[in-house]
Amino acid sequence: MAADAPTPPVFETSWTDGRARVGRLATAHGVIDTPAFVAVGTQATVKSMTPGDLVDVGQQAIFCNTYHLFLRPGADVVAAQGGLHRFMGWDGPIMTDSGGFQVFSLGAGLEGGVGKLGSIFPGEGGMRRLKAGPSFVRVTDDGVQFTSHLDGSRHFFTPEVSIGFQQQLGADIILAFDECTSPLHDHAYTAAAMHRTHRWAERSLAAHGGGISRHGDRQLFYGIVQGGWYPDLRAESTRFTAALGADGIAIGGSLGQTKADMHAVLDLTVPLLPADKPRHLLGIGEIPDIFAAVERGVDTFDCVAPTRMARNAGLIARDVDGERLPRFRLNLRNARYKNDPRPVDPACPCALCAGFSRAYLHHLFRCDELLAYRLATLHNLTAINRLVAEMRSALVEGRFQALRADWLGAGQETV
Amino acid sequence: MAADAPTPPVFETSWTDGRARVGRLATAHGVIDTPAFVAVGTQATVKSMTPGDLVDVGQQAIFCNTYHLFLRPGADVVAAQGGLHRFMGWDGPIMTDSGGFQVFSLGAGLEGGVGKLGSIFPGEGGMRRLKAGPSFVRVTDDGVQFTSHLDGSRHFFTPEVSIGFQQQLGADIILAFDECTSPLHDHAYTAAAMHRTHRWAERSLAAHGGGISRHGDRQLFYGIVQGGWYPDLRAESTRFTAALGADGIAIGGSLGQTKADMHAVLDLTVPLLPADKPRHLLGIGEIPDIFAAVERGVDTFDCVAPTRMARNAGLIARDVDGERLPRFRLNLRNARYKNDPRPVDPACPCALCAGFSRAYLHHLFRCDELLAYRLATLHNLTAINRLVAEMRSALVEGRFQALRADWLGAGQETV
Repeated sequence: MAADAPTPPVFETSWTDGRARVGRLATAHGVIDTPAFVAVGTQATVKSMTPGDLVDVGQQAIFCNTYHLFLRPGADVVAAQGGLHRFMGWDGPIMTDSGGFQVFSLGAGLEGGVGKLGSIFPGEGGMRRLKAGPSFVRVTDDGVQFTSHLDGSRHFFTPEVSIGFQQQLGADIILAFDECTSPLHDHAYTAAAMHRTHRWAERSLAAHGGGISRHGDRQLFYGIVQGGWYPDLRAESTRFTAALGADGIAIGGSLGQTKADMHAVLDLTVPLLPADKPRHLLGIGEIPDIFAAVERGVDTFDCVAPTRMARNAGLIARDVDGERLPRFRLNLRNARYKNDPRPVDPACPCALCAGFSRAYLHHLFRCDELLAYRLATLHNLTAINRLVAEMRSALVEGRFQALRADWLGAGQETV
Repeated sequence: MAADAPTPPVFETSWTDGRARVGRLATAHGVIDTPAFVAVGTQATVKSMTPGDLVDVGQQAIFCNTYHLFLRPGADVVAAQGGLHRFMGWDGPIMTDSGGFQVFSLGAGLEGGVGKLGSIFPGEGGMRRLKAGPSFVRVTDDGVQFTSHLDGSRHFFTPEVSIGFQQQLGADIILAFDECTSPLHDHAYTAAAMHRTHRWAERSLAAHGGGISRHGDRQLFYGIVQGGWYPDLRAESTRFTAALGADGIAIGGSLGQTKADMHAVLDLTVPLLPADKPRHLLGIGEIPDIFAAVERGVDTFDCVAPTRMARNAGLIARDVDGERLPRFRLNLRNARYKNDPRPVDPACPCALCAGFSRAYLHHLFRCDELLAYRLATLHNLTAINRLVAEMRSALVEGRFQALRADWLGAGQETV
């Protein structure tokens, strides 16, 4: 169980200032310059994007979901096609999760599931059932039985099963199997789940073994810090995961109800982590959250927000026609764009902004045309990747706080 | 009303054999090598394709629908953005129709509308109402009142209105406003509608005037041969349209119930047309129909079939793994492709076949992923454009019948 990872450095920092840092994360399919945004391609496709599009938008790495790929087409099918990289035609770095999060969210339906921040509220005395009915998720120390959200079929995941699937998929970075709790869980339940997650982390690492995928490529293994939003549990989980001997550390689970809760979790967690290991923050991608994570020492982060927002006609920009956008998005369905000949963001080099007007994109969204989703996704991924690249430069050049103020305003909280 | 088209040759044939011919059609946005397939981009977008994709698949020209663009975003909106070419970012040739076909199909709902061949059956004694209820289309000699299929709003199209919209849109080739009849109409009604269409053709040509769009580009004007599947009416309409003085001739309306009916209409029509004017066949794009049309002297044709089929997982190929495909398509939703590592068509140079397996495309379709529609469309447009390019070469090299036999089998009817 002890750290015996191969010696070539997986992660090197080239610059640090306080907790924030700039580095390079070496994977079997290329180097990721950090901090880096990892785009989500749940079902082995970043929705509407070809691999060539991903190169065009400056995408360094993508994130696929083991739960979804286990159900469709099956990890064995992907393995028979040579693994995820060959299956989807993406030759760059890929991360997969363990399936844990989806088992507890999609596999559980609403009740007792892991909700989005803000969509559910903490109960008293343990888990609050959001909906009556039998539970679809059964947790034992061995693993989790759950029900497919697609066809109701029953399945059983253990740490060994999850790592086995991830070895079949062949991602460059894989995650330990964990139990995700929600803000609805009380201290006692969260502690029990966390201790189970720690035992599972050890079993996951053992299953990871020599760290080679079924396709002969090196896979980096990340442990996951859990513990909900209870500071004592977070600290305990961080210390455990830091000592696990994993290649990197993911910070997962519920980070509380508010931005301040999330910041507090990061402020508590990151200083306890080893400096020489990469840190991934799961499910973060809103622009203020990216600034908060990067300045607190997070190296990579994944989120569906930029791509999902794109498909809902929310186009990322800092300002529009000289006016600040408080939520960093233009709603292209808005009738004000019907006759607007300007590009979404004149300063953006993406294919949408280089070639098409707001009026055209508005028309495409109004007609629910397929091209709308693709053009908007090209823009949002370009915008996020450019912003994160600018953060890297700004960190090195000592102007990160200026960049932050430029986006978030000077009045907002700083580190 | 007489022919006084400008002298520079719009259309030149470089090769003829019997009725079949190879030529070049010069438009304000480039030359179309004929025979040519025109892809349909109803709402100013060929579904899921960027203009760059259209270049990649060898698309020479596209076809947009005035009825749809009138309703959304409005011809005035497109005009204010500089016309269709600038609006959608496509710098090649564009055709628009007059709105007539959609007014009589979509604008009329089901009842009394213009149906697809084979989906409706001829009534006795004139139009059969497919459904009870008030008519949504009212035809007078002045024009047509119809109801939007989107919001039920009422509109009135005349030849002058239709040509005015097409001048705002700025396509390179525009069509006369016509009344479309269906195989449900009897001889008397079809004759009356045809005579109205002829009067409207003269008014359309007058409205076309100097032949310059609102954006300063030359627009070619095509008259439309109607007359249903009644030989005497088709002949009369062909003679009228041939003498109209249009830049080209479109063959429209119901071509009967069977392939034989369609062939008979072409066999009757084409010999009556002037040799020096381009001929467009409306709504034809199935592979046997393309062979039939090209060998009967048609120069261009448009159809939604290749792109719609693509979105329904129907991938065009002549054969698969050495076996003939009687309908020239693989159904990629079929479970037989779940583990198939081969490209859809190993001989195809498209982005799908060059980069992805059948297994991956099957997975994307099974998950209803957006990328499926795009990859399949890239393939089908490539396949059709390659086939038509091969027809051009085969005609010149005297091996058209061999190519035809190669696709359709030697046993089938020849010219």
